[in-house]
Amino acid sequence: MRIEVLCTGDELLTGVVPDTNSPWFMARLLRLGERVSRTTVVGDDRAAIRDALGEIAERADVVLVSGGLGPTADDVTAEAAAEAAGVALVEDVATVARLRERYARRQLPLSPNVLRQARVPAGAEVGANDVGAAPFFALTLGRCRALFVPGVPAEYRHLVETQVLPRIERWRAPGSGAFSFRILKTIGLPEARLDEQVAPLSGRHPGVTFGFRVVPPESHLELLARGTTPEDAAAKLAAAEKDARAVLGECVFGADEDTLAHVVVSMLGARGETLTVAESCTGGLVAAALTDVAGASQVFPGGAITYGAALKTAFADVPAELIAAKGEVSAEVARSMAEGIRARTGTTWAIAVTGYAGPGGGDPREPVGAVHLAVAGPTGMWHERHHFIGDRERVRRFATGAALDLLRRRLHEREGER
Amino acid sequence: MRIEVLCTGDELLTGVVPDTNSPWFMARLLRLGERVSRTTVVGDDRAAIRDALGEIAERADVVLVSGGLGPTADDVTAEAAAEAAGVALVEDVATVARLRERYARRQLPLSPNVLRQARVPAGAEVGANDVGAAPFFALTLGRCRALFVPGVPAEYRHLVETQVLPRIERWRAPGSGAFSFRILKTIGLPEARLDEQVAPLSGRHPGVTFGFRVVPPESHLELLARGTTPEDAAAKLAAAEKDARAVLGECVFGADEDTLAHVVVSMLGARGETLTVAESCTGGLVAAALTDVAGASQVFPGGAITYGAALKTAFADVPAELIAAKGEVSAEVARSMAEGIRARTGTTWAIAVTGYAGPGGGDPREPVGAVHLAVAGPTGMWHERHHFIGDRERVRRFATGAALDLLRRRLHEREGER
Repeated sequence: MRIEVLCTGDELLTGVVPDTNSPWFMARLLRLGERVSRTTVVGDDRAAIRDALGEIAERADVVLVSGGLGPTADDVTAEAAAEAAGVALVEDVATVARLRERYARRQLPLSPNVLRQARVPAGAEVGANDVGAAPFFALTLGRCRALFVPGVPAEYRHLVETQVLPRIERWRAPGSGAFSFRILKTIGLPEARLDEQVAPLSGRHPGVTFGFRVVPPESHLELLARGTTPEDAAAKLAAAEKDARAVLGECVFGADEDTLAHVVVSMLGARGETLTVAESCTGGLVAAALTDVAGASQVFPGGAITYGAALKTAFADVPAELIAAKGEVSAEVARSMAEGIRARTGTTWAIAVTGYAGPGGGDPREPVGAVHLAVAGPTGMWHERHHFIGDRERVRRFATGAALDLLRRRLHEREGER
Repeated sequence: MRIEVLCTGDELLTGVVPDTNSPWFMARLLRLGERVSRTTVVGDDRAAIRDALGEIAERADVVLVSGGLGPTADDVTAEAAAEAAGVALVEDVATVARLRERYARRQLPLSPNVLRQARVPAGAEVGANDVGAAPFFALTLGRCRALFVPGVPAEYRHLVETQVLPRIERWRAPGSGAFSFRILKTIGLPEARLDEQVAPLSGRHPGVTFGFRVVPPESHLELLARGTTPEDAAAKLAAAEKDARAVLGECVFGADEDTLAHVVVSMLGARGETLTVAESCTGGLVAAALTDVAGASQVFPGGAITYGAALKTAFADVPAELIAAKGEVSAEVARSMAEGIRARTGTTWAIAVTGYAGPGGGDPREPVGAVHLAVAGPTGMWHERHHFIGDRERVRRFATGAALDLLRRRLHEREGER
C-alpha cells in the first residue's frame, strides 16, 4: 500500500510552526508495518492544495491530508478537495447538528463561519470529531482514498487514532498479516554497541524487524513483529523482547511510553522510599525531570542547586576545606554533596552532580565535559565519573540522564536482592 | 520567485528524525522577503528523488535539495540529480583534492566510499563545504535552479548561509529591493493583544511587514523592512522598531537571538548583582533556564527546590505555622520563600515560585494552574498571582517565564531610576 501525506498551512512554510504531526503519524504507522512514501506541504492556497491532491491521487493508494478545515477564510482544504474530486461542497447534516449542540453547550454564538466547517465534498464519508469542531472526512479520488483531518495536534492525533489508522488496517491487502510493536529504551549504551549486541538476534527472529532510534542520551530498540494473527505477532514479539532484554540486561530502563524519570519515581514510590538532589552543573535539570512526573511529590521533597562553592557548603554541608583541597569537580566533593544533602533532608536516597558543562571552566585533570556523579543510599555510596563530548546543552542533558540512571541501576540491583 | 524545498532521507519518513532544517531555512528566507511555496519529502530512493526533482523543476525557479550526499550506498541524490538532468556523474577534481587533504589531516583512510562524495552531475557548479565532507553543488534543470546541500544540520546551515542564500539574493528580479529584519520578543502579552497594539503601526510604516510568532510563553513580533537600498531598509526598520518598542514598552524583553534567562543574567552581571531561587511547582526549571546561560555562575550561586512543605522550612526558613495557616500555594508563602532564601544565600535578589501544576492538587481558592510568584530585592518585595491554563508541562513553562520576567521588569524599572 502506497501511503502519502499532504500537510496544508502557511505557517508550515514560514518556519513558524514545525510539523510535529507527520513524524507522529509516521511512527504510529510503522507499528502497523506500513510507511509513508512521500510528504508534501503546501500553503493555504486552494489551487495549490487541489493540484497537489490531484498529483498524489495518481500515485498513492491512501493520502492523509491535514489542516485547513477550520472556520476562517484561509481554511480552504474542503473546497480544494471538492474541486479535485469534481464535486460540489455540501452541508453535512450530522456535523451541523453536532456543531449546534457543541456551541449551545458552551453558550457560544454559532456564527456562519463556524458552520462553514460542516461543508464537505459531496459523497464524502463524514466522521465525528470528539475533541474539536471540524469533522473528519474520507473521499475517493480515482483509485486513491483521501482522509482529511484538522491540523490542530490534539484533534489530528485523536482522529488519526480513531478514524485513519483503523481504515488503513482494514484496507490492507488480505494476508498482509498482523503486527505487534514494542520500544525498549536503553541508556548508557552507544547506538553502535546496541546494534552489535542485537544483531545476532535478527537471525533467530526472522518475523521481527529490529530498528534503532537515538534520542540522546537514550538509545531505543524498536521491535516490530509480523504474524499471521494478532496472537502470532504478539508471541513473536514476546520471544524477541525476551532475547533482547537478556542481551541488554540492566541497560533497558523501560518500554514504550516510559521515561527515565518516571521509572525512577515509580520504583521509589513502590518501595515507599524518597530522594533528594544536590545539583551543580546540571543546575536544576535533574529536579526538573523528576518534577515533570505528576505525583513526584510523594517521593521527591526537593533538593538544592549548589551551583557555587559556597552553596555546596551552605546547603549540602560540603566542608570548604574539602572543596579547596580537591576542587569543586571531584569525586570527593560529589560524594560529600550526596551525603550532606541526604542527611539534611532525611531522604532514603540522594543524587549529586558536579562537573564542567562548558564552554568555559575545566582544568587539565577535569576538562570541560567531565562530570562526577554520586548516589548516597541506605547501604552505601556509589560514584561515577563521565566525560561527555559536545556543547553545554549536550553535556548537561547527558549528565542528567546518567545521574538518574545511576540511581535506577542501584534500585534495580536492590530489587534483585529482595 | 517561486522557491521549493526537496528533502530526502528514509529517516524523515519514519518519524525517527524531525526535519529541523526546513523551518530554519524558511525563517531565514523570510528575512530576505521570500518564502517557500512547497516542501516535498521523499526517501533514499533514486527514482523517487529523480521524479520529484522533475516535477518541481516544472513549477519552481529555485529548489533547495537536501540529504543523500554522504558516502554510503543509500546516498543517491547526486545520481538522481544527474538522471533528472540527463547527464552523467563525473568526479569533481577540486572536491577530490579537498577530501584527500581533509582525510590526510585527520589521519583517516580515504576509502572509495569517501570519494563517492566527489561525484557530481556533469555541468554542476561545485562549492566547497568547510564543515563537512560532501560538497555543495548547483545544477540547472530546465528553467529551475537546483541547489544541493547535505542534510546534516551543521553542514546544511553553513552551506545555506554561504552558498544558497547569497545566490537567491543575486537571482532576485532587479528592483526587488533590500531587506532588513528584526525580531522583538515579548512576554506577558497574549498574541491578540500584541496584534491589537501593533495594528495601528502598519499604516504608518507601509514599507514594513509586521508578523507574529507565538513561542509559548513568549510572543514575538517580526519586522521585515523593504527598501531600495540596504541603508533605506535599515532606516525603515529602525523607525518601525522605535514605534513598536514605544507601544509595547517593558513587555519587550529582547531582540533576535536573546533569551529571557540570558537577558536576566546579563542585566544582573552588568550591575554586579546576584540572584537565588526557591522553586516549588517549577521544580528546577527556573534554575535550569538560568544555568543554561554560559557564565551564569557569576550571578547565580544556586538555590533550593522546596517542593515539599518541610523543605520550604528547611531551606527557605518559611515558618511551618505560616504554611499551616495560609497553605503552600499562597502569596504569604511565596513571599516568605523569597525572603528566606535571599537571607540564607546573601544574594541581591531572590525569586520564589509556588503553585499547582496539576493534574492533581489544587483547592477551591487556588485551583490547578494557580501560581504565586515573589521577587525579593534590596528595595522591597513584589508578588504576582497567575492562573495558567493548560496541562502540567504548560503551567510549569509559563510559571518559569513569568517568574524570570517579574524580576526582569523590576531590574528594568530600577534602570530607569538610576
